[in-house]
Amino acid sequence: MEFELKDRERLDDLEISGLHIIQSPDKFCFGMDAVLLSGFAYAKKGYRVIDLGTGTGILPLLLWAKTEGEHFTGLEIQEESADMARRSVVGNNITNIEIVDGDIKSVDKLFKRQSFDVVTSNPPYMINEHGVANPQAPKQIARHEILCTLEDVVKAAAYLLKSNGKFFMVHRPFRLPEVFENLGKYRLEPKRMRLVYPQIDKEPNMVLVEAVKYGRPRLNVEKPLIVYDKDMKYTEEMMRDYRY
Amino acid sequence: MEFELKDRERLDDLEISGLHIIQSPDKFCFGMDAVLLSGFAYAKKGYRVIDLGTGTGILPLLLWAKTEGEHFTGLEIQEESADMARRSVVGNNITNIEIVDGDIKSVDKLFKRQSFDVVTSNPPYMINEHGVANPQAPKQIARHEILCTLEDVVKAAAYLLKSNGKFFMVHRPFRLPEVFENLGKYRLEPKRMRLVYPQIDKEPNMVLVEAVKYGRPRLNVEKPLIVYDKDMKYTEEMMRDYRY
Repeated sequence: MEFELKDRERLDDLEISGLHIIQSPDKFCFGMDAVLLSGFAYAKKGYRVIDLGTGTGILPLLLWAKTEGEHFTGLEIQEESADMARRSVVGNNITNIEIVDGDIKSVDKLFKRQSFDVVTSNPPYMINEHGVANPQAPKQIARHEILCTLEDVVKAAAYLLKSNGKFFMVHRPFRLPEVFENLGKYRLEPKRMRLVYPQIDKEPNMVLVEAVKYGRPRLNVEKPLIVYDKDMKYTEEMMRDYRY
Repeated sequence: MEFELKDRERLDDLEISGLHIIQSPDKFCFGMDAVLLSGFAYAKKGYRVIDLGTGTGILPLLLWAKTEGEHFTGLEIQEESADMARRSVVGNNITNIEIVDGDIKSVDKLFKRQSFDVVTSNPPYMINEHGVANPQAPKQIARHEILCTLEDVVKAAAYLLKSNGKFFMVHRPFRLPEVFENLGKYRLEPKRMRLVYPQIDKEPNMVLVEAVKYGRPRLNVEKPLIVYDKDMKYTEEMMRDYRY
């Protein structure tokens, strides 16, 4: 196993299947949201999976380790992030993850329609108008809707998914109405949702959503996912199911 | 205090402000959802409040006791329920609750546009197609969308509310996408939401939503409302804030 590290980059142990990931603290490091999404999503044997806005490739790597999916694609518009992701794939000796440079808004030029069984995305949460000091900064692009909006992501997912294909997304609860509105607009029916509460007496700070292309309306809201117990230790479920 | 009781009716103590309510177990008795909605909703001094599909008037009675609202209207299509509600109001010696017989779909003939500060509703949860043995039965009408749909209720609320007026609703989580879709359609912006979990490790069985007419998009999802603790006793919050 050999990882090619560039200046100011570091190698982090993902503590699953011996995987490591190259990250650059100056740019963007993955957070708990990506890890929770990888535990919430699933991919069966033979599934083709794509992650929209994959950053340094955390979702494809974790889904490769956790699911039975056959092939994983990561789409990323920021070339430096895509480059790190690609070197992580090589370093981990993985042959069925492909990192593609490209724009979520141009998936129709990059991929065939309905060519994936699963789409995942951990998109920018913040609306652009919330104020961005430096719209070229990698961290800002990952966090703010500078290069793509929520609707762009949902529209791309709808284009890429086969009928009955699954779309898994993590987002902020404060935008839940918009999330549902956009999913509905593109016929991705919300079927499963889970709110993530930092502690049992705190407001949720993430929401995990599974939508099914052309699914029938009926949402299953799951039990709360509580991250920390009273003593600020990870709860049992976080350790077990989400392998955090 | 004198309550006029008819055959097979009973008088229940609401255990707040000395209030009692007439109910008929053959027809429909209020549930925890109505009580939670009355704790989730609020009405300030001088507010005019209307409850859509008020049944035997549980919401107006509890809001009368819990809030500073000035006047409360209960609209009910089932005459027997409305009659019970009216006798409860009289029996409790309340002068600022009015019970109106009428159809949610005809609010434009019954009330002036934008004449209320607060609208509440605990509407039928079940979609009509879920199968109804006896569509004339009062309990079925209260539970299934026989006489009105979710959209009818939201549309009526939008008609009745002043600009910036509040709409409070309780519904089942499995219909949350539709709830948001309809609220959005009628410019009632979801601003606050709380999921009710029977226990901390159970799926939620109710969702409380506050929407604001012409409000700006941003949903505040509150901490979970847990009904029972491990020993199946009501949690402290249920006892304190919801006075259950």
